[in-house]
Amino acid sequence: MFSQVEEYLNAHRAEHVETLQEFLRIPSVSADSQKQPEMLKAAGLVHQMLERAGMNAKIHETAGHPIVTGEWREAGAEAPTVLIYGHYDVQPPDPLDLWTTPPFDPQIRDGKIYARGATDDKGQAITHILAVEAWMKTVGKLPVNVIFVIEGEEEVGSNNLDLFLEAKKEEYACDVAVVSDTSMYAPDLPAITYGLRGILACEVKVTGPNRDLHSGVFGGAVTNPINALTQMLSKVQDENGRILIPGFYDDVIELSDEERKQFSDLPFELGDFKKDLNIERVHGEEGYSTTERRWARPTFDINGIYGGYQGEGPKTIVPSYAVAKITCRLVPDQNAKQLTAALKSMLESVCPPGIRMEFKDFHGCEGLVFNTSGDHFQAASRAIAHAFGKEPVFIREGGSIPVVASFEEIFGVETLLLGWGLNSDNLHSPNEHFHLANFHRGTLASAKLWEELGR
Amino acid sequence: MFSQVEEYLNAHRAEHVETLQEFLRIPSVSADSQKQPEMLKAAGLVHQMLERAGMNAKIHETAGHPIVTGEWREAGAEAPTVLIYGHYDVQPPDPLDLWTTPPFDPQIRDGKIYARGATDDKGQAITHILAVEAWMKTVGKLPVNVIFVIEGEEEVGSNNLDLFLEAKKEEYACDVAVVSDTSMYAPDLPAITYGLRGILACEVKVTGPNRDLHSGVFGGAVTNPINALTQMLSKVQDENGRILIPGFYDDVIELSDEERKQFSDLPFELGDFKKDLNIERVHGEEGYSTTERRWARPTFDINGIYGGYQGEGPKTIVPSYAVAKITCRLVPDQNAKQLTAALKSMLESVCPPGIRMEFKDFHGCEGLVFNTSGDHFQAASRAIAHAFGKEPVFIREGGSIPVVASFEEIFGVETLLLGWGLNSDNLHSPNEHFHLANFHRGTLASAKLWEELGR
Repeated sequence: MFSQVEEYLNAHRAEHVETLQEFLRIPSVSADSQKQPEMLKAAGLVHQMLERAGMNAKIHETAGHPIVTGEWREAGAEAPTVLIYGHYDVQPPDPLDLWTTPPFDPQIRDGKIYARGATDDKGQAITHILAVEAWMKTVGKLPVNVIFVIEGEEEVGSNNLDLFLEAKKEEYACDVAVVSDTSMYAPDLPAITYGLRGILACEVKVTGPNRDLHSGVFGGAVTNPINALTQMLSKVQDENGRILIPGFYDDVIELSDEERKQFSDLPFELGDFKKDLNIERVHGEEGYSTTERRWARPTFDINGIYGGYQGEGPKTIVPSYAVAKITCRLVPDQNAKQLTAALKSMLESVCPPGIRMEFKDFHGCEGLVFNTSGDHFQAASRAIAHAFGKEPVFIREGGSIPVVASFEEIFGVETLLLGWGLNSDNLHSPNEHFHLANFHRGTLASAKLWEELGR
Repeated sequence: MFSQVEEYLNAHRAEHVETLQEFLRIPSVSADSQKQPEMLKAAGLVHQMLERAGMNAKIHETAGHPIVTGEWREAGAEAPTVLIYGHYDVQPPDPLDLWTTPPFDPQIRDGKIYARGATDDKGQAITHILAVEAWMKTVGKLPVNVIFVIEGEEEVGSNNLDLFLEAKKEEYACDVAVVSDTSMYAPDLPAITYGLRGILACEVKVTGPNRDLHSGVFGGAVTNPINALTQMLSKVQDENGRILIPGFYDDVIELSDEERKQFSDLPFELGDFKKDLNIERVHGEEGYSTTERRWARPTFDINGIYGGYQGEGPKTIVPSYAVAKITCRLVPDQNAKQLTAALKSMLESVCPPGIRMEFKDFHGCEGLVFNTSGDHFQAASRAIAHAFGKEPVFIREGGSIPVVASFEEIFGVETLLLGWGLNSDNLHSPNEHFHLANFHRGTLASAKLWEELGR
């Protein structure tokens, strides 16, 4: 039965590339309010693709850009229900002058398709639509029930998605979620991501005098807000990379020896890593490898800082204020809200006399790790092995995908993060691209996944 | 004879204000390379004012902005020669949005003239030009020989002034120098400044990865340059305001009990000071009063800091670099060069792995204290008493006027620091202004000073 599906996919490769090209031609930049009509056009095309695949498709208005859904529920009550997530919005294409060919005029070179959204996420998202279409056009039905949720605000914070999912808590009850918005481990090494870091993000502003002061007239007699901020921030982390926020490590699940071995077995060239970044030494929390630091250890990063004079040469002032933007990557079972409050209260406690501190809490989400020995992960592993001709490795990623936390919270399900892209695909950069071979393999893996999950 | 001069000054007040306004309209920001033509325009206007005052004026090219001089040497060999210094360049006007009226559109409100440079130093510098003009236009000669040196690089370190003065070592041999670039002690309390702090100024840049990195993908595994910079800077000063640069206090001359008493006898309302700055508490080096901290203790101030993302909301990056601008105010007998080197080597020693540090040394000068019982100081005291109707107090100031150290070194003379401004004039801040009453009194005091020095 699956051989029919696979034959269909092989026979329709050219058509699938054309469908992808049509999707990539729409400049659906969610951050750009001028692109509102393009967003509607992209949502319309997703709706059309879902209908063509035999899904019952709908476009849902939100306070922002619409969410497109597609359902097919006729696999029966015993068959599992799969929630498939993707996004049709893309990052802004700037800087335009660094693109070899225009970002919204998809071109194929050396087996790769170049366009904004090629890999993030249009190219990856539609593999699942094309896979269900292949089943419907050949077998006439799917081995699983499916619910597609394709949103248009991933690149701007998914502000309206949780509200939508909460409202569908009963209706969209499901057994597992599938998201293809990550990467393979290496060009010939497919991967399933089973862990993500969480995040807390905030801004701290310290204000001293009500205006910039002459550093000769006032220097030494009033607290300098930049001196204060650097002192305060320096207390959050020690020289060995250990974060000193009270309770910060209390809920951290330490890596098992088995997981550490699994990480260290992955191919990784520290020399190449350093060369790529032009740094002489890597440095981080003592006692952990670079991979462990990236995937499984929490962080404290000051993302931006400013205050006082920033022009050429010197300026002899005591500035009025200074600001720092901070993110901490979190790991299971750290709690974002709790630690944001702990960071705030720690900074308050070390705020020196004569300084007022303001704190803005931006957003947060928890880190996640799934058990890879469960049925769903094993099914996905078999599906990928079939399509890529190679067993996938199980990896974690250091970034955060808040929707995965939402799926766990709202529907109580694990998410299969199946990445068909590569880290080198220039996502969020000029000349974003997607290897067509991985596009086709991903589609085949998706089709196979429905069979494996339906067994 | 002096009554004629005084009458002339009283009769020409409106004209003097117009002259000042014309001067203030020129945005002669020496730090801004785009303002080169405005610098030439300002130098040209100074030249014109000096000529109008009957001086033999010249514009001297330098490697930077020109120096304008004006001489009149016909008082005779027995009469003393006075070197009068001022500067026609001004601080950058940023932040522009905090100015009530534009910085280079001088406006008079409540007897004050508002503009960048109003008090620092255009308004103060021209009092001396207008004073000699009054003598020349009435008496036809001056009781002293005068040499004006008006430079255009005071706000950027006076990099070419010393070279110029060195070359004029013989030609500009003089008996005393006069500089009006300081402040009165209080609105009704004129002052002569007999001590100044020195300064060292530098910039430190720390660079990590060659580009901004995704904080999820790389965070924790590479040293974050902002984290590094805050750590490094925090090590320079402890919580009690003590500066930890090795050897920093070795050459500091401690205040005598007599001078401490003299400071504490001056009227000073800590409540008003805090209220003016809108701070709840003053804070500085332990064991010293606010006045002592401002005038006679060295400092470490971060004047500006920047790195990474500075826009709205969060951005999840590990930035590529971060920069801090630093000044230390110095007191006798600290050595600027030595301590700049000590600061650099201290920062290098605490620069963490994976970070490259670059250090720029901007400029420096030593602090100074003069003996107030000498003839020149007593002459200045009488001149000020005449114009302001009140004996001046002798004070120190926390700022640095490197040229005063140069006058001592090159010509072996003391400098009379006669300030007509007020600390509340917002020098170096938005809404800089100068009280016109003090502008006129300063001009009268200057005219009287020539008589007193010529006795």
